Amino acid sequence: MTAAFDDWMKTVQAGAEQDLASYLPGPELLPLKLHQAMRYALLGGGKRVRPLLVYAAGALFGADAEALSRAAAALEMIHAYSLVHDDMPCMDDDALRRGKPTVHVAYDEATALLVGDALQSQAFLVLAEARSLPPARQLAMLRLLAQAAGSAGMCGGQAIDLDSVGLSLTLEQLEQMHQLKTGALLRASVVLGALAGKELEPAELDALNDYARAIGLAFQVVDDVLDATADSATLGKTAGKDAADNKPTYVSILGLEPSRALAEKLRLDAHAALAPFGEKAARLRELADLIVQRKA
Amino acid sequence: MTAAFDDWMKTVQAGAEQDLASYLPGPELLPLKLHQAMRYALLGGGKRVRPLLVYAAGALFGADAEALSRAAAALEMIHAYSLVHDDMPCMDDDALRRGKPTVHVAYDEATALLVGDALQSQAFLVLAEARSLPPARQLAMLRLLAQAAGSAGMCGGQAIDLDSVGLSLTLEQLEQMHQLKTGALLRASVVLGALAGKELEPAELDALNDYARAIGLAFQVVDDVLDATADSATLGKTAGKDAADNKPTYVSILGLEPSRALAEKLRLDAHAALAPFGEKAARLRELADLIVQRKA
Repeated sequence: MTAAFDDWMKTVQAGAEQDLASYLPGPELLPLKLHQAMRYALLGGGKRVRPLLVYAAGALFGADAEALSRAAAALEMIHAYSLVHDDMPCMDDDALRRGKPTVHVAYDEATALLVGDALQSQAFLVLAEARSLPPARQLAMLRLLAQAAGSAGMCGGQAIDLDSVGLSLTLEQLEQMHQLKTGALLRASVVLGALAGKELEPAELDALNDYARAIGLAFQVVDDVLDATADSATLGKTAGKDAADNKPTYVSILGLEPSRALAEKLRLDAHAALAPFGEKAARLRELADLIVQRKA
Repeated sequence: MTAAFDDWMKTVQAGAEQDLASYLPGPELLPLKLHQAMRYALLGGGKRVRPLLVYAAGALFGADAEALSRAAAALEMIHAYSLVHDDMPCMDDDALRRGKPTVHVAYDEATALLVGDALQSQAFLVLAEARSLPPARQLAMLRLLAQAAGSAGMCGGQAIDLDSVGLSLTLEQLEQMHQLKTGALLRASVVLGALAGKELEPAELDALNDYARAIGLAFQVVDDVLDATADSATLGKTAGKDAADNKPTYVSILGLEPSRALAEKLRLDAHAALAPFGEKAARLRELADLIVQRKA
């Protein structure tokens, strides 16, 4: 990490926090509890990986600031809603998220359900309200967001994940699951950031998809390594949960050292995919490094 | 009800059923359980009130068939997802819907949660994929759908409903709650149907909103009357549930006969709002009659 990258990252994270706060209904608006719980779920933490990817990809083509801000916020709202629902008792039943009580613990289950539902609607609203994009391109971005969020993307991955508890997946099945569960939204982050700048040539889209696939998988491999090796205080969520829940992970299938080696290979794949973009892809390269080398 | 209206209604309902089936991922696609449960939640029943409103409003301005079909399907997907989540144990905990076991009973709670989430994404995808609309108008339709679904619409109404269990609401508070909980989506149905035909003049939008507000309230007043007077077999859901749950209703606040009189007044208000549209509003008038005079 260079100091310049670190500064850029902090700037994007702080900006995303401000933008998210402004794109949510105010905490003084009725219904109070729902609006306050939506802010609780979304604000005040998180690595903001999806906004970072949006801005880094936006830098490839000098994308408009409002479009980037709205795409980043929409993706983070979808991500946050999925965490709220994923933490509920009928799913992962987790009490801790980003070092704070999860929404159904801090409020109640019904509120957590509605918070997730309303955050998903808000994500589409925020992206549909962008005023600086050509409408046809904006529609393409909305389609991409909806695909990445739905049953062919994130929700589909969650469903496969649920059904695989206690099963011994092959490496290929595990990869497919993660490419939907977390990969679809990470891929959408990269492509939406780029689309905020211009329409993409097929070769550009292919290169960005290759990059995003590599970092998406790397993200998950590193998550599994951290879940197996770090403590809850460092992670801000319950460590060792996957093993306790008998969920298949890269570490359980490959072992710890081969998982670390795979993450490093994927980091290099991500760099290779960015070759056509030259210097403008610096931030995307540094994000690949960050995703693989993070400690939490 | 004339025979012509009855035929029209059956045609729209059958068409909506076909369209919904074609706009959902196939039941043979992975993840199988999620895709099958999405079809279970959405297909094979329901009054299709929202599609009927979309097509009736579309008839005002000769709207394009593909645009109407997609708007109707998107609204019905949002409606269906809200029923799936609303029936879950942490919300209304209902075991019966349209005469069938609810999704969390037929499958499991985690699947019900994901079915609702994925149906919401699918709704935005289906509307964003329309190819026959001017992109700027299509974006306006997506914004309207997102507003009607989210915390300023349906989800907000659900939150107020939850918080009002056991409280004695005023008539005004009860009306506000229903204008969000069910009214927002009914209003969106009318306006999206009209927008599928053309951009709306402010006076046209006002008239349609007046109509939609009247039928939205009438719909709820009649629901409360039926919940207090019909049996579960006729309703296809658990009757007497509101009183058992200690929920405020029109019947509990106004009494039975004044509630029936209010529904009739709202029916006439709805007719009055349609005056500027003349003969082209025939279907919208007949739908107002149907909503007030239905027996289930």
